[in-house]
Amino acid sequence: MNLKAKGTNAERELIKIFWNTNRWSAHRIAGSGSSHFPSPDVIAGNSLRKLAIECKSTKSIKQYITSEQINGLREFSKIFGAEPWIAVRFNNMDWFFLTLEDLKETEGNNFVISIPLAKNKGLSFEQLIQ
Amino acid sequence: MNLKAKGTNAERELIKIFWNTNRWSAHRIAGSGSSHFPSPDVIAGNSLRKLAIECKSTKSIKQYITSEQINGLREFSKIFGAEPWIAVRFNNMDWFFLTLEDLKETEGNNFVISIPLAKNKGLSFEQLIQ
Repeated sequence: MNLKAKGTNAERELIKIFWNTNRWSAHRIAGSGSSHFPSPDVIAGNSLRKLAIECKSTKSIKQYITSEQINGLREFSKIFGAEPWIAVRFNNMDWFFLTLEDLKETEGNNFVISIPLAKNKGLSFEQLIQ
Repeated sequence: MNLKAKGTNAERELIKIFWNTNRWSAHRIAGSGSSHFPSPDVIAGNSLRKLAIECKSTKSIKQYITSEQINGLREFSKIFGAEPWIAVRFNNMDWFFLTLEDLKETEGNNFVISIPLAKNKGLSFEQLIQ
């Protein structure tokens, strides 16, 4: 399975978790990586909250995210009126949800999430939807 | 171009109209026709309003919509917290936007929009986003 298909699978898995609550809807955005317009990977929502989510799944111990992705997520969230979140899943662990303020900036103006950072700052799914 | 590609092109065109306002965002939902979960074709929004849109483009003088599509749009809109809208474009005409109450039910429990109905009940894009 190529990287894109793996990413899509991770997004689909996250979407099911939202629908399984029976109180949240979630959908993948078409062409989110290639769209001309700022775009999250997933939009989830209920009558009270809307979440714009960038999804990352990795076998590594660190997940890097480009500043372009972060800026696009921030811009979309502002126009649409949603909370921007990063969902990250490391091997054999549950999803962690981080705000943009939680991310650590790297030297090249990009961002990184380590496992300790995710455990320290990240919310579980149950905490996210509380 | 096949029917699916034509539908996708119509959705992309509508999405550009929203972004061109500089105040609305809009995105196509991945696999909206084949998803296990109730889904619109397009989600558009700004900080005040969220619109769940089923897009239809036709060369015919009538646009039929199945009750499954209407029910899915209604269900998604309720869970997500969005206004359900049907966007329909007939040949050489601008988009019309109709609420679910505007649609005419057919004998087989499906729905139909004629050009006169669209002109009579439908909103223009400018009216929709007012």
